[in-house]
Amino acid sequence: MAIVYIALVHYPVYNKNRDVITSALTTIDLHDFARLAATYGLGGFYLVTPLDDQKALADEMIAHWRHGWGFEYNANRAEALALVRTARTLRDASEEIEKNSGIVPSIIGTSAAEGPRGSGRTWPQLVKYEELRSRLDNDGPVLLVFGTAWGLTDEALVECDLILESIKGPTEYNHLSVRAAAGIIVDRLLGWR
Amino acid sequence: MAIVYIALVHYPVYNKNRDVITSALTTIDLHDFARLAATYGLGGFYLVTPLDDQKALADEMIAHWRHGWGFEYNANRAEALALVRTARTLRDASEEIEKNSGIVPSIIGTSAAEGPRGSGRTWPQLVKYEELRSRLDNDGPVLLVFGTAWGLTDEALVECDLILESIKGPTEYNHLSVRAAAGIIVDRLLGWR
Repeated sequence: MAIVYIALVHYPVYNKNRDVITSALTTIDLHDFARLAATYGLGGFYLVTPLDDQKALADEMIAHWRHGWGFEYNANRAEALALVRTARTLRDASEEIEKNSGIVPSIIGTSAAEGPRGSGRTWPQLVKYEELRSRLDNDGPVLLVFGTAWGLTDEALVECDLILESIKGPTEYNHLSVRAAAGIIVDRLLGWR
Repeated sequence: MAIVYIALVHYPVYNKNRDVITSALTTIDLHDFARLAATYGLGGFYLVTPLDDQKALADEMIAHWRHGWGFEYNANRAEALALVRTARTLRDASEEIEKNSGIVPSIIGTSAAEGPRGSGRTWPQLVKYEELRSRLDNDGPVLLVFGTAWGLTDEALVECDLILESIKGPTEYNHLSVRAAAGIIVDRLLGWR
């Protein structure tokens, strides 16, 4: 069975005007993604930001819940946060997984968009949930990539090996929170029913 | 097809010491649940709190995004927040659905726990995802109920008609965020794959 990792990317992502920005990390995303990783037995959760002060802040929050009085207050959070790593770039996260497992991970991008958003670049191939789920039975490690703000830029998505098809409901509305979307996607790929 | 509603309950819920408390509403839950409801074409999202000042705060936040400068800033939020209602109790939410649809909704409780948490009360019958999903094809309205903090109390769960089985991963860890859990559950029941 493939080991699955998740990454939450704070750069490069779009804002609502489709400018490329670095978003600020939030405590709620840190905990929600860590708890998701712990529940589904994932290999780890990479919080990706190129900013030194944001990385330091993340490390401080993790230490608080793992070793500070946060641990006394709620040990469940320590268990989940033990799965969190910080990385400056998606490439750094990928290289660390490769170093630890000896195999280059497949990088799977996610997006609520249906295709490139005006960059003129071509996306990697789309993959359906059932297809990716069946691949997980025997493939090497997989890194599932989520974007904050208005989502991963085309430049980030073209670095991926495959793009997972977007989550569609019966409506035209496609603005799920990244917290809900990550839960749904991990469950579609790994959930036991 | 049954119309599905979701409710997020702030009282009665447990804290980590299993005291019965009223939790404070959060803006992130308000938006995440509204966006989930909009994506999956739900009938509405009930924010349940018995506290007048919390209800007033919710109404103010909703008005800000629907009609204030929040609307100018991000109209997608207005579309989602149009689905939000506030209710003092689960019973009030249920009665409003009945009034609007002419049919008493089935109330489906959710919990990460496997059974009663020390109250000595017996839970309603458990229902599996596939079973509830197939019922949605022709039943009347359904109200799916989620708890904040450490989850719905036994007293809240015994008011439900059925309890949905908990989400289990391959680990013993069962502390998903309510934002991720709600996404996963709505997707398991209504998601198109």
